[in-house]
Amino acid sequence: MSFSVAVAGASGYAGGELLRLLAGHPDFEVRTVTAHSNAGQRLIDVQPHLRSLAHLTLVDTTPETLAGHDVVFLALPHGASGALTAHLPADTLVVDCGADHRLESETDWAAFYGGDYFGAWTYGVPELPVAGGTQRARLAGSRRIAAPGCNASTVALALAPGIRAGVIEPDDLVAVLAVGPSGAGKSLKLPNLASEILGSANPYAVGGVHRHIPEIQQSLRWAGAAHPTISFTPVIVPMSRGILCTATARLVPGTSAAAVRAAWEQTYSDEPFVHVLPEGRFPRTADVLGANTALIGLAVDEAVGRVVTITAVDNLTKGTAGAAIQCANLALGLPETTGLCTNGVAP
Amino acid sequence: MSFSVAVAGASGYAGGELLRLLAGHPDFEVRTVTAHSNAGQRLIDVQPHLRSLAHLTLVDTTPETLAGHDVVFLALPHGASGALTAHLPADTLVVDCGADHRLESETDWAAFYGGDYFGAWTYGVPELPVAGGTQRARLAGSRRIAAPGCNASTVALALAPGIRAGVIEPDDLVAVLAVGPSGAGKSLKLPNLASEILGSANPYAVGGVHRHIPEIQQSLRWAGAAHPTISFTPVIVPMSRGILCTATARLVPGTSAAAVRAAWEQTYSDEPFVHVLPEGRFPRTADVLGANTALIGLAVDEAVGRVVTITAVDNLTKGTAGAAIQCANLALGLPETTGLCTNGVAP
Amino acid sequence: MSFSVAVAGASGYAGGELLRLLAGHPDFEVRTVTAHSNAGQRLIDVQPHLRSLAHLTLVDTTPETLAGHDVVFLALPHGASGALTAHLPADTLVVDCGADHRLESETDWAAFYGGDYFGAWTYGVPELPVAGGTQRARLAGSRRIAAPGCNASTVALALAPGIRAGVIEPDDLVAVLAVGPSGAGKSLKLPNLASEILGSANPYAVGGVHRHIPEIQQSLRWAGAAHPTISFTPVIVPMSRGILCTATARLVPGTSAAAVRAAWEQTYSDEPFVHVLPEGRFPRTADVLGANTALIGLAVDEAVGRVVTITAVDNLTKGTAGAAIQCANLALGLPETTGLCTNGVAP
Amino acid sequence: MSFSVAVAGASGYAGGELLRLLAGHPDFEVRTVTAHSNAGQRLIDVQPHLRSLAHLTLVDTTPETLAGHDVVFLALPHGASGALTAHLPADTLVVDCGADHRLESETDWAAFYGGDYFGAWTYGVPELPVAGGTQRARLAGSRRIAAPGCNASTVALALAPGIRAGVIEPDDLVAVLAVGPSGAGKSLKLPNLASEILGSANPYAVGGVHRHIPEIQQSLRWAGAAHPTISFTPVIVPMSRGILCTATARLVPGTSAAAVRAAWEQTYSDEPFVHVLPEGRFPRTADVLGANTALIGLAVDEAVGRVVTITAVDNLTKGTAGAAIQCANLALGLPETTGLCTNGVAP
Repeated sequence: MSFSVAVAGASGYAGGELLRLLAGHPDFEVRTVTAHSNAGQRLIDVQPHLRSLAHLTLVDTTPETLAGHDVVFLALPHGASGALTAHLPADTLVVDCGADHRLESETDWAAFYGGDYFGAWTYGVPELPVAGGTQRARLAGSRRIAAPGCNASTVALALAPGIRAGVIEPDDLVAVLAVGPSGAGKSLKLPNLASEILGSANPYAVGGVHRHIPEIQQSLRWAGAAHPTISFTPVIVPMSRGILCTATARLVPGTSAAAVRAAWEQTYSDEPFVHVLPEGRFPRTADVLGANTALIGLAVDEAVGRVVTITAVDNLTKGTAGAAIQCANLALGLPETTGLCTNGVAP
Repeated sequence: MSFSVAVAGASGYAGGELLRLLAGHPDFEVRTVTAHSNAGQRLIDVQPHLRSLAHLTLVDTTPETLAGHDVVFLALPHGASGALTAHLPADTLVVDCGADHRLESETDWAAFYGGDYFGAWTYGVPELPVAGGTQRARLAGSRRIAAPGCNASTVALALAPGIRAGVIEPDDLVAVLAVGPSGAGKSLKLPNLASEILGSANPYAVGGVHRHIPEIQQSLRWAGAAHPTISFTPVIVPMSRGILCTATARLVPGTSAAAVRAAWEQTYSDEPFVHVLPEGRFPRTADVLGANTALIGLAVDEAVGRVVTITAVDNLTKGTAGAAIQCANLALGLPETTGLCTNGVAP
Repeated sequence: MSFSVAVAGASGYAGGELLRLLAGHPDFEVRTVTAHSNAGQRLIDVQPHLRSLAHLTLVDTTPETLAGHDVVFLALPHGASGALTAHLPADTLVVDCGADHRLESETDWAAFYGGDYFGAWTYGVPELPVAGGTQRARLAGSRRIAAPGCNASTVALALAPGIRAGVIEPDDLVAVLAVGPSGAGKSLKLPNLASEILGSANPYAVGGVHRHIPEIQQSLRWAGAAHPTISFTPVIVPMSRGILCTATARLVPGTSAAAVRAAWEQTYSDEPFVHVLPEGRFPRTADVLGANTALIGLAVDEAVGRVVTITAVDNLTKGTAGAAIQCANLALGLPETTGLCTNGVAP
Repeated sequence: MSFSVAVAGASGYAGGELLRLLAGHPDFEVRTVTAHSNAGQRLIDVQPHLRSLAHLTLVDTTPETLAGHDVVFLALPHGASGALTAHLPADTLVVDCGADHRLESETDWAAFYGGDYFGAWTYGVPELPVAGGTQRARLAGSRRIAAPGCNASTVALALAPGIRAGVIEPDDLVAVLAVGPSGAGKSLKLPNLASEILGSANPYAVGGVHRHIPEIQQSLRWAGAAHPTISFTPVIVPMSRGILCTATARLVPGTSAAAVRAAWEQTYSDEPFVHVLPEGRFPRTADVLGANTALIGLAVDEAVGRVVTITAVDNLTKGTAGAAIQCANLALGLPETTGLCTNGVAP
């Protein structure tokens, strides 16, 4: 069985990663790739790493070019997919890698994004612990899926197990992330230039203004927190891909280190793509480069009364395109792991 | 049909890359992984990016642990495989990623390596143009294969088409390579430290002393050069993987630019893993990261009378482990492309 | 007036940075450079970036070779300076860049370092706010100075102003640092290899075990905290130098954002080497590369109730060698800024 | 004695480096900094690494704002300085870091740059061996100086000694350069993005089209070559600064290795900023980061009949801004080395 696929925004980094993964997926056939300013060019000239898709040519991103496919993946700038998707048939599986359909709260949308609000779709983090199970259940059969923000899903996967288990306090969470610049896409802005990033660590969106904060809070509410609050600071570092998230939370008084570890291990024990590392081991982003894997290391700092989690994710793979395909697998009834690799490219 | 596989030197970078590729190969089953100082450890603790092989444990590298497999891949330091392989059955396919069996000339071996000489095996660059065809023909059915040196095979693939076609002069070749440090393996030496390499470009083996020089000359002789000579300079640059080879050769007087282009394009027109880019396009190493692909860009600099080739290869994939598996496919009668990816991980 | 100087450990990274700065200092003359395994080599062969000191040759590190200088800088592995310095004259200014003389608490020493305890010297962070003033007053005329740990001084400079002013809570501090590998010196260990660090973010010493923690607490006690506690996580990122420290603290309830900003700005308003950036601006490590400058950005995250500080320091300059020279200036009665640059090398 | 200085193009990378060096120069006082789109901003907000110049504000780049200074440094895009400088007084020292006044041949200008031709100024590479001496003599007292192209001056310094001495052939030169992206300035183009450059080696201007080629030829003609030809290939690598140039030339038959070495060593034996390394040693770009130093390593590859030179230069310092200040020192009768550092920032 093969599903026909269109990828909108195929000239960007997220679009390129979708195509790289789709090219190795046995049940998907990429028929259409769309772009904006690059429309008319051969895909291989814009994404020279995608040799196996050298036969494709970019076309304009319109409802017409996207129509007639079983699955449409959108990798468009924020705000661009909302208007477009209204024109796609209801029975087409649409997976949006942008932010337009992630937030259930129109207030949050207005506060952190602004512009038209398009409503929330099924949130695309299957492993996320939610009341009574995981987010996975909601994805089966869904036809409108919002792939997560890469930073947001990383933090949520890191902290939700402890919140659901009641072993960490859901307020006063603190997360600091070392992230690669590919998350910013091909945006031609000074802070994205190589000369600005090579040899330097650059913070941004400091002090509670990053757009992924409400998305994290939404996930943590699903995990059981009434009013989660999180100090969230991303730092761009000189690696093209990867998120290394250090997320800490206050330990609920009286909780043992064993109980903490059990909360995380039990949550993810059967997951193919999320792994809790043994005591004393912590992941590096190199371990997950190009893989659909999230690796979590865990420590209890008794002297401070905080649980420290270290989570490594490839922002473009498990953080975006891999998650999108994993969700598409679930939505279409395919084995969830189809076409997705758990091994990183290292060194 | 599944072949049982052992990988010796599984704790190193080349060994890790072999395992990453083997993990995705439908016809190979990795049963045994061996190491030296790391024997006894779980593979996942030494190669934390190889999640799908987390069940394996490293054992000692001995003829006994390697015995009983259909295929043995060796990723050992130079000099280590020669003695070992004498003890392996003649009908076991052995692919050596080290240098011990690459050179046909014992004189060259003595001059550039020294120590015991173990004789040459079938050289593992299938696409290499040789008299009357390609190296591929020699690999079918072979049971002893020497995977190439990453720099050597890159230069040979870059220049051999022009030599075989008689459009470039085989002497006074000049190659300068920007290379990542993973080619040096996990050797604990000062020049391999991150602090030495980050933010810096570091030449080594300057002036005709690099060990890959006789290997390049051997390949170019197979392509038809009686006495090839090459100035060869590698420069370590701050990227973990990759070779960007600028190789130039004097144009045979009177040769047209079209004839030059035709020589390369005809040589590789049917190759799945070696591609000549269109006029005016040149590859980047990012385009082939993790892929079994060599991309070649070509220009004729009329003012100087030189052909300039730019070739991008991932030193660990097409340069080493991918080539080894490609050759194993050929030796075993599998489709040559089985389990090998042509798409890079970019950005 | 010129002071004669010896640098012990001149072949390492900290020693090299001391020499780079001393070479540009008008009042210091480097007469002796010592090393261990590199003794007998020309300095320029070990530190090829120090052209202006090409006349020096490394000698053994002994009390005899260090004797007879006005100033001795020690850049030795932890544990090596304690025994050595007992043999130096009391009126020689000795500045130790190692950890041996930083901690006043023998208990902390035993818990985090172990081995012989050598007692505390004057701590070398002049700008540190302490009861009744700054650490500067204690440094004038001192003849035994402990240069700070780079991470420890960065965190202390980041948080001490708020603690002394009573605007942040001194417990439940959280610091996550993106750091370059040069802080680990030339130690030949696998995690320090370029291939391990390029393209990856690597945490270490997670969960309250880093040796700089008691040093941070000591500084914060001097700033007025009775029982400071801090969750401290360093992450190695692919830049040779630099610390980008994200340090957060709970806001004391009822404190205004203006009061927070005033605490930091008043503390450092007259400092030549520590600067608080304007509202909305945050530093990058590139801004301080090679400079003796600490730049601090500040935000109040009202939604979380935390103050977020971002501090950029070059670990080898302001974090180690620059601090050492700044302290030597103070100890010898020279203008504090002599020979020290506030401008970074960027991009 | 203090000279008043204006820097035009102060918001770019070359302008920033000029200011960093001028800030440490005892005889220059920066009074005016100009920009285009950044005019009106505080310099420190655009160049946050230049703390010591925090008092300056960017003004428009006009003849009026540049008038009234003893020295004007121009760091403008190619084509911008030519028209501007016609309006500056003849007795003002003007040093142009752009290409507008480098080429003596209007034909070359038309072929490689195009647009208005503004005529050649005194070329700013003091150490360049020319007939009867060095370029230095022409710089004394000059009031119009063209600072060199960074790649061009690196190649010229690398090869000119051998050409003047007649030990290498001036045709069929081959140079391949690993270069950092800062040479491209703050231009907002896709190939300059960090995601494109991190982890990758990217060639550009392949095949004889790079604009520095005629500038190299011009220098080599001054060194005695009638018709120099050079194959020139730059490769962008992931370091913000630096040029590592591998330049080779055919050995004149019958020339001894000693004669080759003597040619280079004699040329630069008294130079403060250009050093020939001992036999068997080769420079890294880290050795010259931020320094006004060119380091040259030399080998004779007898098997090929080529001399191989490896030259390390910081493109922004010795390649551009340092050269400009060195030339200004000469033009004004100051000691040539004033305010210029020979030590690199490493690691």
